[in-house]
Amino acid sequence: MDELTIFGVPGSLRKNAYSLGLLLAAQELAPKDVKVEIGDIRGFPVFNQDDEANPPEPVRVFHDKAMAADAILFSVNEHNYGLSAAEKNAIDWGSRPYGKSAWDGKPAGILSASVGQIGGARAQYELRQSMVFLNMFPINRPEVIVAFAQQKFDNNGRLTDAAARKFIADHVAELARYTRVLQRGR
Amino acid sequence: MDELTIFGVPGSLRKNAYSLGLLLAAQELAPKDVKVEIGDIRGFPVFNQDDEANPPEPVRVFHDKAMAADAILFSVNEHNYGLSAAEKNAIDWGSRPYGKSAWDGKPAGILSASVGQIGGARAQYELRQSMVFLNMFPINRPEVIVAFAQQKFDNNGRLTDAAARKFIADHVAELARYTRVLQRGR
Amino acid sequence: MDELTIFGVPGSLRKNAYSLGLLLAAQELAPKDVKVEIGDIRGFPVFNQDDEANPPEPVRVFHDKAMAADAILFSVNEHNYGLSAAEKNAIDWGSRPYGKSAWDGKPAGILSASVGQIGGARAQYELRQSMVFLNMFPINRPEVIVAFAQQKFDNNGRLTDAAARKFIADHVAELARYTRVLQRGR
Amino acid sequence: MDELTIFGVPGSLRKNAYSLGLLLAAQELAPKDVKVEIGDIRGFPVFNQDDEANPPEPVRVFHDKAMAADAILFSVNEHNYGLSAAEKNAIDWGSRPYGKSAWDGKPAGILSASVGQIGGARAQYELRQSMVFLNMFPINRPEVIVAFAQQKFDNNGRLTDAAARKFIADHVAELARYTRVLQRGR
Repeated sequence: MDELTIFGVPGSLRKNAYSLGLLLAAQELAPKDVKVEIGDIRGFPVFNQDDEANPPEPVRVFHDKAMAADAILFSVNEHNYGLSAAEKNAIDWGSRPYGKSAWDGKPAGILSASVGQIGGARAQYELRQSMVFLNMFPINRPEVIVAFAQQKFDNNGRLTDAAARKFIADHVAELARYTRVLQRGR
Repeated sequence: MDELTIFGVPGSLRKNAYSLGLLLAAQELAPKDVKVEIGDIRGFPVFNQDDEANPPEPVRVFHDKAMAADAILFSVNEHNYGLSAAEKNAIDWGSRPYGKSAWDGKPAGILSASVGQIGGARAQYELRQSMVFLNMFPINRPEVIVAFAQQKFDNNGRLTDAAARKFIADHVAELARYTRVLQRGR
Repeated sequence: MDELTIFGVPGSLRKNAYSLGLLLAAQELAPKDVKVEIGDIRGFPVFNQDDEANPPEPVRVFHDKAMAADAILFSVNEHNYGLSAAEKNAIDWGSRPYGKSAWDGKPAGILSASVGQIGGARAQYELRQSMVFLNMFPINRPEVIVAFAQQKFDNNGRLTDAAARKFIADHVAELARYTRVLQRGR
Repeated sequence: MDELTIFGVPGSLRKNAYSLGLLLAAQELAPKDVKVEIGDIRGFPVFNQDDEANPPEPVRVFHDKAMAADAILFSVNEHNYGLSAAEKNAIDWGSRPYGKSAWDGKPAGILSASVGQIGGARAQYELRQSMVFLNMFPINRPEVIVAFAQQKFDNNGRLTDAAARKFIADHVAELARYTRVLQRGR
């Protein structure tokens, strides 16, 4: 089978953010014909519609890579029971039509982690609501909701929890499978 | 192409309910190789887990027809900013494994109508959240959100509004298209 | 201070349901000037707007008690990532104006439990959305989200987990405090 | 009665944004013992937890004014079926404890507008979910959901629609009333 490219969108600007750690695990655990490329959301200004026709360079690079990918993997951290501003900002910039939305029609996966019991789940459902408008096709299972994240990463931000790693491996494999179903069925 | 069967789930027990009227319009407007069968949710008791192994006859009939369908079309009316009890009850009965969930893995469409400005949209997103657990695959577009419904149906509960009829025709056609994509891509 | 009456709404018809167990704990743990009365939702038909002017006796009794209470305490169990049909049905029956909505203007608390990691939290937020329309005033803290419920109740449906009991005691005390703030401030 | 200060949070960086226009109308239509002060969210970087101890000047000014207010009035515009990144960013910056969350315990109102039929309602419910964690106390009625906004503002961004202006006047009056209930009842 042809190689698939999955574009990972982190949800935080923090160093060693959990959301970045989840994407690094996805990269490591992806099937061998699946490449996970991680987007860089640093240097983005807050989205302003007045500037959308002329986005700064980091936004352009991010948008181009997202456009080129076969599928998207959002990694979510929950701020105040919703998506982080950093993640929503990346989504909003990626959606705007100087050309075309980078998300339109793409299959998608979602990972989340948080220090609490709910593991970022609230932000996942918020993202799914945005995907209706963005016309994305999220997979359902397995949901990857990493609770009590502070116990599951090492000091370098590497995910060490075996169960969480298994869920991520299964999620990426399912996203690849579903992406191929949609591509074959066209 | 083979004929597809879409199973319609109404959201109300009321005579001439808008949610039933939307399904009747879908039945009328479906492409000719697509059959819309409308489920009967009358005579269901409120779901009680203690009774799930031995559901009453109307539930069995409903479940069998839902199982046999290629896709599901939920027609939603909003009660108190959420799904109606009647609709949630049908969904919960349909999901229980005396045998298997009738919803598992199926593509789905959603229609809604209400007398207000929001047209049942709040209930649609609630249903989409349930679909994550139910492992259903809802289409995104066009969303069918019929606001100010009292102006768009005649006294017999028939949808007469031309724009709403066009949205429903497009929604059913898209659901059929997407169902075939998922079937072909398997 | 005058005694307050809090009316508890269970979310399930199942014997020994967790949602009922949470309300029994609330009853036991309430401050001594606060009485928790538990509503009986058995024998309710599925809500049908055609019948709302003439509801059956169990609905009348439930509605009267809810009307008379100072505050409402909903106990939620999550079915298919949403409110159970039994709970939504009780809410919809209670909201209809043969006379007046029983919920209008009342302060409210929310408890939930489930066998999974998320502890019914998804259903809590759905209920909060309904409360906007119902014009209820839910408290925020502490949220009572009892995950892995099967480990926290005994065989008779009694909540035995000390941490969960503490959260419920604090939640009921806060609901009573907030109810008095709203009553005094009128 | 003492004067109340309501702090308005706009949802967009765009010139003549609808969300800003709603706040200007609120300012104009507030009861005479109520002052609506509009926050300035320009110049905010995207929230980064690594920088929260040392926020830039515009964030400090915004946070100080929000802290000092009696109540908060969020004005929401919907991007991709959710809160705009600009609004979520202002909320996240305002919530962080270099000192204390500016939102904690405050009563709140919500206004929204959009060019479509739903008028930003989806973003309103998302914000309400954040308010649970933020421990805010939103009013319920009247909801201000300005649909088809392009027909309701003039070219200078001034809200001209009479019905929308009436809803805003009522919403601000209700927020003031509710704020006084909470203050008196303490």
